[in-house]
Amino acid sequence: MQWIDVRSDTVTQPTAAMREAMFKAEVGDDVYGDDPTVRQLEELAAEKLGKEAALLVPTGNFGNQLALLTHCQRGNEVILGDDCHIVWHETGGAAVIAGVQLRTVESDKGALDPQAIARRIRVGDDIHWPKTGLICLENAHSNGRVIPLDIMAQTHALAQAHGVPVHLDGARVFNAATYLGCDVRDITRHADSVMCCLSKGLAAPVGSLLAGSEAFIQRARRHRKLMGGGMRQAGVLAAPGILALTEMTQRLGEDHANARYLAAQLAALTGIQLNQDDVHINMVWFAFTRPLDLPRLLAAFTAAGIKVNPPEDGQMRIVTHWQIGRAEIDRIVAVLAEFLRD
Amino acid sequence: MQWIDVRSDTVTQPTAAMREAMFKAEVGDDVYGDDPTVRQLEELAAEKLGKEAALLVPTGNFGNQLALLTHCQRGNEVILGDDCHIVWHETGGAAVIAGVQLRTVESDKGALDPQAIARRIRVGDDIHWPKTGLICLENAHSNGRVIPLDIMAQTHALAQAHGVPVHLDGARVFNAATYLGCDVRDITRHADSVMCCLSKGLAAPVGSLLAGSEAFIQRARRHRKLMGGGMRQAGVLAAPGILALTEMTQRLGEDHANARYLAAQLAALTGIQLNQDDVHINMVWFAFTRPLDLPRLLAAFTAAGIKVNPPEDGQMRIVTHWQIGRAEIDRIVAVLAEFLRD
Amino acid sequence: MQWIDVRSDTVTQPTAAMREAMFKAEVGDDVYGDDPTVRQLEELAAEKLGKEAALLVPTGNFGNQLALLTHCQRGNEVILGDDCHIVWHETGGAAVIAGVQLRTVESDKGALDPQAIARRIRVGDDIHWPKTGLICLENAHSNGRVIPLDIMAQTHALAQAHGVPVHLDGARVFNAATYLGCDVRDITRHADSVMCCLSKGLAAPVGSLLAGSEAFIQRARRHRKLMGGGMRQAGVLAAPGILALTEMTQRLGEDHANARYLAAQLAALTGIQLNQDDVHINMVWFAFTRPLDLPRLLAAFTAAGIKVNPPEDGQMRIVTHWQIGRAEIDRIVAVLAEFLRD
Amino acid sequence: MQWIDVRSDTVTQPTAAMREAMFKAEVGDDVYGDDPTVRQLEELAAEKLGKEAALLVPTGNFGNQLALLTHCQRGNEVILGDDCHIVWHETGGAAVIAGVQLRTVESDKGALDPQAIARRIRVGDDIHWPKTGLICLENAHSNGRVIPLDIMAQTHALAQAHGVPVHLDGARVFNAATYLGCDVRDITRHADSVMCCLSKGLAAPVGSLLAGSEAFIQRARRHRKLMGGGMRQAGVLAAPGILALTEMTQRLGEDHANARYLAAQLAALTGIQLNQDDVHINMVWFAFTRPLDLPRLLAAFTAAGIKVNPPEDGQMRIVTHWQIGRAEIDRIVAVLAEFLRD
Repeated sequence: MQWIDVRSDTVTQPTAAMREAMFKAEVGDDVYGDDPTVRQLEELAAEKLGKEAALLVPTGNFGNQLALLTHCQRGNEVILGDDCHIVWHETGGAAVIAGVQLRTVESDKGALDPQAIARRIRVGDDIHWPKTGLICLENAHSNGRVIPLDIMAQTHALAQAHGVPVHLDGARVFNAATYLGCDVRDITRHADSVMCCLSKGLAAPVGSLLAGSEAFIQRARRHRKLMGGGMRQAGVLAAPGILALTEMTQRLGEDHANARYLAAQLAALTGIQLNQDDVHINMVWFAFTRPLDLPRLLAAFTAAGIKVNPPEDGQMRIVTHWQIGRAEIDRIVAVLAEFLRD
Repeated sequence: MQWIDVRSDTVTQPTAAMREAMFKAEVGDDVYGDDPTVRQLEELAAEKLGKEAALLVPTGNFGNQLALLTHCQRGNEVILGDDCHIVWHETGGAAVIAGVQLRTVESDKGALDPQAIARRIRVGDDIHWPKTGLICLENAHSNGRVIPLDIMAQTHALAQAHGVPVHLDGARVFNAATYLGCDVRDITRHADSVMCCLSKGLAAPVGSLLAGSEAFIQRARRHRKLMGGGMRQAGVLAAPGILALTEMTQRLGEDHANARYLAAQLAALTGIQLNQDDVHINMVWFAFTRPLDLPRLLAAFTAAGIKVNPPEDGQMRIVTHWQIGRAEIDRIVAVLAEFLRD
Repeated sequence: MQWIDVRSDTVTQPTAAMREAMFKAEVGDDVYGDDPTVRQLEELAAEKLGKEAALLVPTGNFGNQLALLTHCQRGNEVILGDDCHIVWHETGGAAVIAGVQLRTVESDKGALDPQAIARRIRVGDDIHWPKTGLICLENAHSNGRVIPLDIMAQTHALAQAHGVPVHLDGARVFNAATYLGCDVRDITRHADSVMCCLSKGLAAPVGSLLAGSEAFIQRARRHRKLMGGGMRQAGVLAAPGILALTEMTQRLGEDHANARYLAAQLAALTGIQLNQDDVHINMVWFAFTRPLDLPRLLAAFTAAGIKVNPPEDGQMRIVTHWQIGRAEIDRIVAVLAEFLRD
Repeated sequence: MQWIDVRSDTVTQPTAAMREAMFKAEVGDDVYGDDPTVRQLEELAAEKLGKEAALLVPTGNFGNQLALLTHCQRGNEVILGDDCHIVWHETGGAAVIAGVQLRTVESDKGALDPQAIARRIRVGDDIHWPKTGLICLENAHSNGRVIPLDIMAQTHALAQAHGVPVHLDGARVFNAATYLGCDVRDITRHADSVMCCLSKGLAAPVGSLLAGSEAFIQRARRHRKLMGGGMRQAGVLAAPGILALTEMTQRLGEDHANARYLAAQLAALTGIQLNQDDVHINMVWFAFTRPLDLPRLLAAFTAAGIKVNPPEDGQMRIVTHWQIGRAEIDRIVAVLAEFLRD
């Protein structure tokens, strides 16, 4: 049986074209700088992300931690949202590897008030204070919403005024650009560095990119080695990564449309609470308006060949991607409709 | 000229009795465990703080960082208030030394909602998550307010339910006890470890204490060496420390009364905004209701032989201590009254 | 032109069978534990390496650092050879990530005297001393020699007597087993954990394994996430990795024979100093007995389509692998013979 | 009973003059830079140690760790002797706090071959390599020997040629100067920073100094806060520290003469092996030529009112200081003579 897997877009299988690309990839030893496919991907990524240079890393988590390590001195303070991925889902790595202090700003559905960020920037050289080493933004946010560009622009402006760099956790930055209908560079120009994932909605099997200035990426290359991310014939990952950037980025709108299609149907069901305005990209979050028999629900999904994650804090998430079309969505809706009818 | 120094209670001079005690102190090599005065202080502190054991450390900052290092594994998450001393005034040390991730809770004038803390405790063993290693409270808070005991009790109860220890930054815990009219143990029993300062309002020249279980203090003794805090003939610091704990703790009420006396007079001045209900201990915070010529104000204080810190975020702080009596306060009020009259 | 690349065995291209395996690999999201090919590789590796469990990691460097992080507490001391890879070639990561202190033992061509190790183990609980957290061995050593098993056995025995675990940097452990004519488990049973590389002589494009007890690998899986090594559809790397373990391990003897063939011819050249007894695996080290025009030598190699690394400390290294046969070796020898004849 | 304590010179009691100085010390809040006695000590120390600036720290261990943190970036490599204090007796702090990798050089009784240091300096920018951040020397060495100045000079010269700073662990640098009959600046000019202890032979109760350039000390002041070493009315420690530097440094020759007097007598005893040429400062090391009943020996010392440490690795150490005169030495010799006679 072919499962319908909507737990996340991290579950995406590589496309046939990606497998073909891997098969044929010209490779070399990338630690020696000899892998032509990696070089091609990094140049392409730099150009697409509007930065001077880019670097292939094993995962998005790795790319974010590498950015912290490369922007900051140990003991620096990093300002970021209290619901962002670095705070929530990176196993506390920021304090272990970069040795930086996280300073959180309350998030309004992923958006950080630039003034709240400004209030946390350490001005002056009081020896009691860590220095502000970095501001991190996340767009699209892992809650499925896209942060308005003016917020990013204001944040970047005030960061520059204080000489503080901005890093963008852009794991799904191409989803953000698709939602905003802009070039991805219109987003990334509000940050000094950006991490974007080739896996997730872009369907490459493994790999993320960190992009920034030449000098930044040169330092990051050294730190990538320190963190154990200097892979050898990484062209086999870069080849599908090139397709991720060139082809898969073009079709994200389809995933978003499918998410809205799903959201509209779920919103119509009695017993489900869902804010369609929050469906910016390929994620649909919803809650149940009354207590329900969770194990029975999960069993119903499983019986229908659907993989879902159990709700977190009462919120259930369904994620669309290239392997999820209208038929799959209809089956998901049918399971929920049936379940709620009982 | 004898300055009136109200910048902080950290400026307190040792009393004559303390100097005498230093002079006569019986000392030994405390790294060998041979300093009888240190041992006496540590036993006294353990008893007064209601813990099994205590350890002399060079500063309060050192004691807090030592607590983080000893309670936590690297990569653990520590839940604490966004306006607490560890976040604000310890130079980012938590990420450098203990390697822990700070997770802040919005503070209501220093008080943390136990439910907000509970929501941040990581339940389960998701590999994306750091483990919650510690909850830190601060009482009295460095904003001059005392946190109600029921909040501490609730926090400790929920921490225990999750197997998470609680550390109390009790730099001014004797001020808190004085305000609450309780024994200091009624406060410290809501925490697994407590740091308290012998300097500040208690006027010892140098030194703080970390107290907790025997096993905790044994591990902390090893970590104190790692952090470079194993002092030799430390009895010269312990001797005034004993007076700090036995005598100076008895007179903190006087400082508090003086702070309220100051607050009442300032509140009566046109042009000053001050909430007398916030004056719990020896600190008076106030703001000016209209823009003023700050350099001229500071010059006026200096001319009157008064040392004050310039306002932070528009708030000015005056701190009372054993060297500040009614006469000194009257002089401070006079300067402000004169200045605002212009 | 097809280069003859003998800079290292890290330059190996994946075989046609590996490309085919990547193309067809069944994959899933390995962070969810859903990648069947990764699971198959990890089970196979555990069995071959004689450990309870194994974990796929991006690089050998990553695997070693992960072992340090997982075996040790921060501040522990790690005993290892002064010429080993962790000391020399891992960018100082041990102090940054695991926070451990390296304590080196003088190496005799890669072999460490067990008594010298024993003398460095910290016995007792002196608070001035870091605790000994780990002993690291390397076999085959990156100098091309294989460490005798009795040395490993003695080291493991004394480590166990002190309750200290042993980690084996077995980047080329299958080369060591081939040289010794033993099962790789006869080597790895003298260590509590082992890292081995699928790239290098085994020719997989990317990936290494860390193997150990179930409990150790469970902790390592969490730490792998912290370090950013939790890859998604990693089956595309695992599939060639399976061939690396099953097929490529069978043919390493050929590389070793080729290295000896090369060494014998070089030793016969006037002007080259080479100890054939040091050629245990696929590496040949040699020096020139008289000063020479290095740029001209490198140009001669390049002109002949041969990639070599320039000498380090006067020593030149040539590494054989599956893409280097007798014809390639003859060309290398010819270049050197011609050059030295002048 | 007054014990004769020869376990170490860390056991020294403050002199009567020191107690008097503490009693009268003019003090202020040193974190505000307001303690006149600390300022006086720091200026005096800078001048005596031949550096631009100096900083009071709680302990020698603290001063060394602070130097590592201030000279180095995390991940740097530090070259130092395999028997030095930082490796042996600082609880692994270098990897925890500064995050640096220790790279040891075999020591010849404390002296490091400059060529062996040179071979460990990383030249070039290979991304596999940590950068060499610091070289640490120790003089006098804690084994009681003084390192020849030409070795220090050569080491400093080669360090400068590579742009690497040199830190001197000069816990007993005044003993070294006394032995060499030179000004302490003749030693410290071969290092960029120096730590010296006010306790130990100089008898101050608590405190050490870190000295270096203005810029270095300014950064160190900030890092001292991070490490929790920003003490308040530290003038009570600085006052005896001033006497340590001005008066006690003058009388160290007496301790050295006493050590030689002790050594000469012990060397004459049958059953003791002792190299008088190794007695450079105030330490006498010796071994017993035949197995002996250690508990009985320690009991004999205790019965005679003498505190000694048990032998380490078969070597016994006796340390002279201002409280040990000829009479005390004669009693020590008598106990040993009596014991060995049996």
